[in-house]
Amino acid sequence: MIISLPGSEPIPYTYTMKSTPVALVISLLKKYNVIKNPKEIVGIGHRIVAGGEIFKKSITLTPDMLIQLQSIHDLAPLHNPANIAGIQDAMNLLPDCPQVAVFDTSFFSDLPPENYLYALPLDFYRDYHIRKYGAHGTSHRFVAQQAASLLGYSLSSLKLITLHLGSGASIAAIRYGKSIDISMGFSPLTGLLMGTRCGDIDPSALAFLIKNQAFSSIDDCMETLNKKSGLLGISGISSDIRKIEAHIEDNHQAKLAINMFVKKICDYLGAYWLELGGADALVFTGGIGENDCYIRKLICQKLTCLGIGINSANNKNQEAPFDFANYNSKARLLVIPTNEELMIARDTYELIRRKEDVMDTV
Amino acid sequence: MIISLPGSEPIPYTYTMKSTPVALVISLLKKYNVIKNPKEIVGIGHRIVAGGEIFKKSITLTPDMLIQLQSIHDLAPLHNPANIAGIQDAMNLLPDCPQVAVFDTSFFSDLPPENYLYALPLDFYRDYHIRKYGAHGTSHRFVAQQAASLLGYSLSSLKLITLHLGSGASIAAIRYGKSIDISMGFSPLTGLLMGTRCGDIDPSALAFLIKNQAFSSIDDCMETLNKKSGLLGISGISSDIRKIEAHIEDNHQAKLAINMFVKKICDYLGAYWLELGGADALVFTGGIGENDCYIRKLICQKLTCLGIGINSANNKNQEAPFDFANYNSKARLLVIPTNEELMIARDTYELIRRKEDVMDTV
Repeated sequence: MIISLPGSEPIPYTYTMKSTPVALVISLLKKYNVIKNPKEIVGIGHRIVAGGEIFKKSITLTPDMLIQLQSIHDLAPLHNPANIAGIQDAMNLLPDCPQVAVFDTSFFSDLPPENYLYALPLDFYRDYHIRKYGAHGTSHRFVAQQAASLLGYSLSSLKLITLHLGSGASIAAIRYGKSIDISMGFSPLTGLLMGTRCGDIDPSALAFLIKNQAFSSIDDCMETLNKKSGLLGISGISSDIRKIEAHIEDNHQAKLAINMFVKKICDYLGAYWLELGGADALVFTGGIGENDCYIRKLICQKLTCLGIGINSANNKNQEAPFDFANYNSKARLLVIPTNEELMIARDTYELIRRKEDVMDTV
Repeated sequence: MIISLPGSEPIPYTYTMKSTPVALVISLLKKYNVIKNPKEIVGIGHRIVAGGEIFKKSITLTPDMLIQLQSIHDLAPLHNPANIAGIQDAMNLLPDCPQVAVFDTSFFSDLPPENYLYALPLDFYRDYHIRKYGAHGTSHRFVAQQAASLLGYSLSSLKLITLHLGSGASIAAIRYGKSIDISMGFSPLTGLLMGTRCGDIDPSALAFLIKNQAFSSIDDCMETLNKKSGLLGISGISSDIRKIEAHIEDNHQAKLAINMFVKKICDYLGAYWLELGGADALVFTGGIGENDCYIRKLICQKLTCLGIGINSANNKNQEAPFDFANYNSKARLLVIPTNEELMIARDTYELIRRKEDVMDTV
């Protein structure tokens, strides 16, 4: 039994041995007869949003590493502290059970410097670690592996563009199994337009707004960019694209929000197509990517100049995975459900197995 | 005689009738026998950096319009006040001479809303006019017209991507004579990496740096992004790409700066190729675009997946205009010297001529 804890949303909770989230999970597993004894749990995998430049792959945590993790709280102040609280909880309850950390950023540790650096004075990278870290790495990695399996090729021979389109959204360029670019930046704010996040924006506009007292502080500004912008800010209706699409014919802000969402995705698709020198497949995942055939159609209509074409009959809401490219398309168009929990469980299993292999040979 | 005043750089000067810049220009024109009498000057064209949403094309200025212009100083606080001082100077010296304003932003007044809006709450556009205004419009418009003439087609039948690469740098997507996208944003800070400007950046990284006291204020931050970043910030050598290229073999920061410069250009090329659905020609202009065949080669090497190929023998430093695409290339690759002063003079002449036509028919 491996427990996979995605834990991406920070859940404040009080520490009492009876009511911790991990204790709750264990009691439920017992109640539903998945396990009889907590000792059957041989590993727990934790999703960690930010691994900084320290953690470049999934690892079995030691107490020293927990201290290192705490040193980079600043990179994900809303998420990492909650993630670590979950790890400490699990360590307290099951002190002999391996705790594996799976980082949302580690898939992007192979980005070339020209892709992860900002054109600031280089000291800001050296002294403050300002760079593009990306996010959604666990999802991009999972669907890339699934795509290779579906296409019947080794991942190390494929060029892929993976689109994780949900309330958070990002696009990754993946060459031969390694991500070489990602639309999200230092934080998950930038890149694509998202449910409530603005995506790419000129900071001069923000300085102008602060100077003109449209915001009371930088924190107020960042709060607006993160929580009141994106699809919600433009449509004035909702951050949920389904509710916006329902008004696309009768509300011009709804139509504008959809157009802006699609436009920004296409910008990155064009950039990454060129960066990869073409791609074997585009992979759609996330709530919108998996379920919204209208948005997929709007995106793919813009791709004919790249030789990419859709089979409209296949671009419908059906059980995924499936391919909706037409026969002549230069790239396959795959819809693949993401499963970050399974990816975390796989990494956890792999690390435990390897450790056991080592033990066997001692 | 038409005087064309590019005046893009703010030059502080004291108002004394003898020493104003326009008085100096007139005295030089007399000294070198270009004119005998200032009355031979039938029009003066002024470059204005920001026209906001008010000025959507070149116009003959009236005193009311000058007041309108002053109302949008905030959009280009370093440039517009100096531009207006020049206009007032010319009006004082030649009160009967038409003063024409040519706006660097007006070429981008046809951008569709999904391209000029940021995904902030829409009130920031309504109340504060926060949008993408672009810049370098006079240059992009000039080279687009020249390209059409060189190719022997009407501009209204062509899809072009124009690259103005100098110490400031921008890329425009032009469909049938109208620009539909531009890399610069609310201000000339964003888009491509430039001599000293950072180009696109995640504002969360700036909030992080301000919070960690890397900057003393927002003004200090914006100063660094505008004047100490870009090629200078990464290379640590110079904002002049020639000096950086001289060290590309022996200095890894020099190589990194060049790679980042080229990478960002290619991102926009990919995005605009897709946005236009392919292009008939890419047009290189500006100091780097016109004279740096090494950078042109690095850019075009990334374009083979679009069916674009270069003729290396033609990609050399030679008298422009010229075309260095190979025979089979899907798009022509043109090098065209920009001439913003000539464009300003043409607009000025055209407005005077039309006014005279009107007078003739009265």
